[in-house]
Amino acid sequence: MTKEEFKVTPWEVSGNVDYLKLSKQFGTNIIDNELLSRIKKHTKDLHFMLRRKIFFSHRDMNWILDEYEKGNNFFLYTGRGPSGYTHIGHLAPYVFTQWLQEKFGVEVLYQLTDDEKFLFKDSLSLENANKLAHDNALDFIACGFNPKKTKILIDTENSNTLYPIALKFAKKITFSTAKAVFGFQNENNIGQIFYTSMQSAPAVLPSVLAKENIPCLVPMGIDQDPHFRITRDVASKLGWYKPAAIHKKMFPSLNGIGAMTAGVPATSIYVADTPELVKKKIGSAFSGGGISLAEHKKHGGNPDVDVCYKFLEAFFEPNDKKLTKIYNDYKSGKMPTSELKSYTTEKINKYLKEHQKARVRAEKQVDKFMYKDQKSL
Amino acid sequence: MTKEEFKVTPWEVSGNVDYLKLSKQFGTNIIDNELLSRIKKHTKDLHFMLRRKIFFSHRDMNWILDEYEKGNNFFLYTGRGPSGYTHIGHLAPYVFTQWLQEKFGVEVLYQLTDDEKFLFKDSLSLENANKLAHDNALDFIACGFNPKKTKILIDTENSNTLYPIALKFAKKITFSTAKAVFGFQNENNIGQIFYTSMQSAPAVLPSVLAKENIPCLVPMGIDQDPHFRITRDVASKLGWYKPAAIHKKMFPSLNGIGAMTAGVPATSIYVADTPELVKKKIGSAFSGGGISLAEHKKHGGNPDVDVCYKFLEAFFEPNDKKLTKIYNDYKSGKMPTSELKSYTTEKINKYLKEHQKARVRAEKQVDKFMYKDQKSL
Repeated sequence: MTKEEFKVTPWEVSGNVDYLKLSKQFGTNIIDNELLSRIKKHTKDLHFMLRRKIFFSHRDMNWILDEYEKGNNFFLYTGRGPSGYTHIGHLAPYVFTQWLQEKFGVEVLYQLTDDEKFLFKDSLSLENANKLAHDNALDFIACGFNPKKTKILIDTENSNTLYPIALKFAKKITFSTAKAVFGFQNENNIGQIFYTSMQSAPAVLPSVLAKENIPCLVPMGIDQDPHFRITRDVASKLGWYKPAAIHKKMFPSLNGIGAMTAGVPATSIYVADTPELVKKKIGSAFSGGGISLAEHKKHGGNPDVDVCYKFLEAFFEPNDKKLTKIYNDYKSGKMPTSELKSYTTEKINKYLKEHQKARVRAEKQVDKFMYKDQKSL
Repeated sequence: MTKEEFKVTPWEVSGNVDYLKLSKQFGTNIIDNELLSRIKKHTKDLHFMLRRKIFFSHRDMNWILDEYEKGNNFFLYTGRGPSGYTHIGHLAPYVFTQWLQEKFGVEVLYQLTDDEKFLFKDSLSLENANKLAHDNALDFIACGFNPKKTKILIDTENSNTLYPIALKFAKKITFSTAKAVFGFQNENNIGQIFYTSMQSAPAVLPSVLAKENIPCLVPMGIDQDPHFRITRDVASKLGWYKPAAIHKKMFPSLNGIGAMTAGVPATSIYVADTPELVKKKIGSAFSGGGISLAEHKKHGGNPDVDVCYKFLEAFFEPNDKKLTKIYNDYKSGKMPTSELKSYTTEKINKYLKEHQKARVRAEKQVDKFMYKDQKSL
């Protein structure tokens, strides 16, 4: 893989992703200032992940706003494949989704796909994927979702609700299509081939239950878009609205290449990491600094490739002014790498301390969040 | 297709099946007199479907009896794909399974695969497949199963139990294998490809719940054997016993070719058919009689191709002496076709009258039979 090459699938992100190129490949729309103004009309302020184009691409966001303005409220659907403990990259879409819930006053469905991770990871047992799902649920709740408007689905525990809907999708997806979209081969297992239908189901679940079309907006990592290309196509064939999407860039990995991956500890800071471990990991994270302090002061650093700067931009420094100052000071050489690293370590540890407290509170709330099966057939 | 050709898959039976040839193709064992004697040691008498080799083939029946004799009782697992209302051909395996339950004092699991029929029949909605499943359940119960030892699973309603187990099978079945066994192509839908895992699940469900291996015997139409070749292979990889099998010949169709098929009304007598309709259908059933009464009396008829005779042999005349007399009298020409037809009509109508009464009683019992989901993960 040369420097220019990259790969983004629901199960693998590698290389340095060119997001404009990817959006073109996937056929999504870049979020422009016009759309941002339209969102701001309803939300009053803009989340920094929108201002900074962390959420950078979409499908049908204008339609979602059209419907909203007509009084047809949408619901949010997002999810996670429980392949490991939660890392800081997982929190970003949760925090943004919670913000959308608050600003638009909408319901949220959150799907934990323990089936998927079991099917796609050789070494992961279904029992462990399911345990991780329950663990991951606490980190999701800890991001402040409204317990009255938020439900968590676990694929192996809400199959009675999801499987009948998944079947309706599955009947309209040929192996050809799955092969074209996901690159499946003869060696793929038959669970992997079927799985995308389970991920489609929540996008129409509220409509199925209400027996009328309810718009759906899916905040997601851009890597999940292939699933939703199928979901959109088939939902429409089944008489349901196509779910709209808003796409996030991948969260940077500690080594500066590709995305933070729960299954790859070397690239990740987990929310349960101790302050000492976070300090150590940030200490060895890929840096854009000069090779010596003297060199750095003279020629400056490169914030655009620096993992600490990327973490601050993507999540830990919501204040634009402070972030710009850091960018400029680091680039000019005024801020040394050690200072950027200790600032970032402090920011992360402060965030995780609060998160851990919220996670303890979440343990008492979790039952209220779990989806109780309803007849979906 | 020439006279010698036939095709037997879980979704299509055509041509005149050569069962010895089929057993060789599938790699099953023919039930011999030694095995029959061994069964008889425990059952005292032999069911006419065993005496007449209607159930003609098996896998691992001797192992089932070994375990039984050691005090390790097996359970029975059978099922039906609800593609239409119950016809008389469906009752045959139920009646035999009920006999096995009674003689061996064993539990029965019965699976209604509404998912399968929806996925494989273009024109069938999931809602209708599910309605048919509930209707079919009554005909099953009407065959006299012990409500304390019999549970009915419906795939779309017991997904919470079945799907987690199905996933474990699915992870070990490649598309290559499914393609080789079922002949899947790029045009097959991804639900069809996954489905066989759902049919595997009940074969190990009691073992999964008990956390110890329990032998399983599956009475089935020989057309279902391809599924269970996969089930046996994968169950063993997962550490469970391979389910044993006992195979039934297909129930003859009214036109004398292939098998009675619920989705093809012209070939079938449904259990809800009125006595008049049964009379009419038997009247036009394929006959082995002479072209005129005079001809028949002179040269005799051919009971081996006569649908009425086949019906009596397969189900409606359990008395061997009476059946032999009919065979001989028809062959010699002593019994005219009209007499064979009216005898058969009477037998069927008498049976269906009793069945209908039992079906009404079943309506009150059905709740007791339905499987309540248990944590299978």
